[in-house]
Amino acid sequence: MAIQFWFEFASTYSYPAAMRIASAAAARGVRVEWRAFLLGPIFRSQGWNDSPFNLYPAKGAYMWRDLSRLCEELELPLVRPSQFPRNGLLAARVACAFADEPWLPDFVRAVYDANFARDEDISAPAVIARCLASAGQAPDPLLEGAGSEASKAKLRAQGEEAAQRGLFGAPSFVVGQELFWGNDRLETALAWHAAHDAGRL
Amino acid sequence: MAIQFWFEFASTYSYPAAMRIASAAAARGVRVEWRAFLLGPIFRSQGWNDSPFNLYPAKGAYMWRDLSRLCEELELPLVRPSQFPRNGLLAARVACAFADEPWLPDFVRAVYDANFARDEDISAPAVIARCLASAGQAPDPLLEGAGSEASKAKLRAQGEEAAQRGLFGAPSFVVGQELFWGNDRLETALAWHAAHDAGRL
Repeated sequence: MAIQFWFEFASTYSYPAAMRIASAAAARGVRVEWRAFLLGPIFRSQGWNDSPFNLYPAKGAYMWRDLSRLCEELELPLVRPSQFPRNGLLAARVACAFADEPWLPDFVRAVYDANFARDEDISAPAVIARCLASAGQAPDPLLEGAGSEASKAKLRAQGEEAAQRGLFGAPSFVVGQELFWGNDRLETALAWHAAHDAGRL
Repeated sequence: MAIQFWFEFASTYSYPAAMRIASAAAARGVRVEWRAFLLGPIFRSQGWNDSPFNLYPAKGAYMWRDLSRLCEELELPLVRPSQFPRNGLLAARVACAFADEPWLPDFVRAVYDANFARDEDISAPAVIARCLASAGQAPDPLLEGAGSEASKAKLRAQGEEAAQRGLFGAPSFVVGQELFWGNDRLETALAWHAAHDAGRL
């Protein structure tokens, strides 16, 4: 049984989760399934045409302060993006199309670093190309693959699966049939995994 | 410097926070200021006429499951209230009027127990009277005091202070100028208190 990590590249709390999950899961011997998805369609189905952090200013002001404290504690760099939320469609197509590649976690971390530590526009193909290169990959064939109809359909299907599983925000973790929402539930999700994997032995 | 505990009697995640905070703060030598407030006016200012857990069903379904897991971990009884959210106005007036009384924490815990472990209607004066009695108090004069114009005004003012401080949900904790939102931020708030109180010495 793996832990599914559902993330959206524009999502602020997905940033610390993406940076932490590989080592946190490895320390407990748990395999991670990386599941990129888009929050936009889910937010729109709730009547929101923007991030709730923009729609509800008190919530937004708190989130930026909370994220800043959290990143300081985790010793993660944070530069508040000059545009929020940024469009993570291209990055999500790459992450979805190549989810099982060994370099994928490095790519995901590079995209979050670009968005939240370097204030780079992750909707720009040149930025995503650099992220692929930093993960040791030749960008052009991968970008081409991510732009294929099959890749687009795969990301759409993954978004539909997210909604079916009851996801309403990111990051989310799924262990078996259990859903956990929020960076601060990563340890809870891993503990659930440990308890229920042990129960099967 | 104390930790302010801002709670709403209808709020689900305020339940474990209310049950935990006295012992968690005492273990660190921190004084708790108990601040009852009503979320209704704050939600209405965000355009919501109901709990977001009712307005957004996926969020609500997750919350009940998450709360159930959490209460199991904390060994807290949980019976999903047959009415949600319940009207906590009377309880909040009592808690606000008598915030500094030594019996207040016992009363607050009794109200949460009534709402979330016994499925009792906390808007009923008889239920609140029983909660006062279980905290060792004669209910009638206190209920009378809570119904005074002064008590009503005090709770309204406390709600306005909550909004001014940027609160948008419950439970919330305030340490100095720092706001922390959610039961799962209690330890973070206490750690912040420790770090910043120590810095002053």
